[in-house]
Amino acid sequence: MQSNVQVEVVLVHAPVINRNRETIGSAVTNLDLHDIARAGKTYGVNTYWVVTPYEEQQALIHEIVNHWRDGYGAKADTDRAQALSLIEISSDVESVIEQARKKYNRKPVVLVTGASCTENLLGYEEVQAQIEAGVPVLLLFGTAWGLAPEIIAMADASLPPIRGRTSFNHLSVRSAVSIILDRLLADKG
Amino acid sequence: MQSNVQVEVVLVHAPVINRNRETIGSAVTNLDLHDIARAGKTYGVNTYWVVTPYEEQQALIHEIVNHWRDGYGAKADTDRAQALSLIEISSDVESVIEQARKKYNRKPVVLVTGASCTENLLGYEEVQAQIEAGVPVLLLFGTAWGLAPEIIAMADASLPPIRGRTSFNHLSVRSAVSIILDRLLADKG
Repeated sequence: MQSNVQVEVVLVHAPVINRNRETIGSAVTNLDLHDIARAGKTYGVNTYWVVTPYEEQQALIHEIVNHWRDGYGAKADTDRAQALSLIEISSDVESVIEQARKKYNRKPVVLVTGASCTENLLGYEEVQAQIEAGVPVLLLFGTAWGLAPEIIAMADASLPPIRGRTSFNHLSVRSAVSIILDRLLADKG
Repeated sequence: MQSNVQVEVVLVHAPVINRNRETIGSAVTNLDLHDIARAGKTYGVNTYWVVTPYEEQQALIHEIVNHWRDGYGAKADTDRAQALSLIEISSDVESVIEQARKKYNRKPVVLVTGASCTENLLGYEEVQAQIEAGVPVLLLFGTAWGLAPEIIAMADASLPPIRGRTSFNHLSVRSAVSIILDRLLADKG
C-alpha cells in the first residue's frame, strides 16, 4: 500500500516547558531522531520536522542524519537511511507551518499534543477523516515537559491526551508519537 | 481508573536474531528501560520483565533502576521511580513464564510480537477480550532484529505485525511496545 496522506510530524525543542512549567529549550536526543523517523516512515508521514533554534544542535542533527544517510551508516543500514531521509530541520514552528502552506498550497491543520492539552480538542476519528480526505495535517509534539503555551495557542486544535489505565501519564515523546501515528494512520484492515 | 488487568511485558535480549537471522544476545539499552517502563505504567502493566542471561548486563539494569528508584534520581524525579519499579530481571523466558504461572495460579497466555510473525495469529480484539476477562497475558518483544525462532515456537500465538501505510516495517521496540499496549489497553472512552 502506498501512502497518499499529507501528514507531517513536528518535534519541538523550543519553546517547551520544564517540570516547573517554565519555558525552556531542550537538547536534541539521538533516539528521538531514529525512533520517530522509523515510526514516521512506517506510517507514511511526508516530513519529520526537528525544530530547534540552536545552531550547534542543528549541526548535531545534520551530523547524525548524514552519517546514516550518506556516510558509513548508509552502507551498514539502508533502513535507517530511508527513515532518516524524512528529517528536515527548522528554527521555529512558524517557518514549518509557512513551508507546509506553500507545499500543499493551503494552510495545514495544526494540531498540538500533550498530557495537559485538555481544551479545544479534536477527536482522533475526526482527524482521521480529515487526513483521509486529503487535508494536510501538522502534528506538533513537545520534548521535555511538553509544548509551551504560545505554541498551543497557535494551533487549530489539540488531540485528546493519551489515556492508558492509570492516572500515570508520563509517556516518552517517542512513545506518544508512535501511539498517535498508529491511532491516526494504521492499516487496521 | 484503576488497572485490574493481568498483563506483563517481556523484553528479550537473548535469544534474538541479528540482521542475518543468526541467533544472538543483544545489549541492554538505557532508553528501552525508561520508555517501556513509562508506557507499561501508563497502561497498567503489572510487571516489565527485562530478560538477559548476561550477569554484567543484569548488573547494569540494577544500577540504572536503583539510581532512579532509591538513589539521587528518586529525589529528582518520582515519576521515573514509579515507572521503573515495574522492572524485574530474568535470565530466560522460561523462568518468566514459570513465575507468572505461580503468581496467577494458572498458565499465562504467551504472545510473541514482531514484523516477521505471520503464522498462528491471534487478533488484537480477541486478545483484548481475554485481557478484559482477567486472563493473564505475557507480551514478548525482541530487541535487535526480533525474537529467535525457539521463542516464537514456545508461544501460544503471535500478535499480528503492526502495519502502517507503507511496506517499511522497522519500528523500534520502544515504538512497538507503546503501540501494542495502546491497541490492547487504551482507555478509548
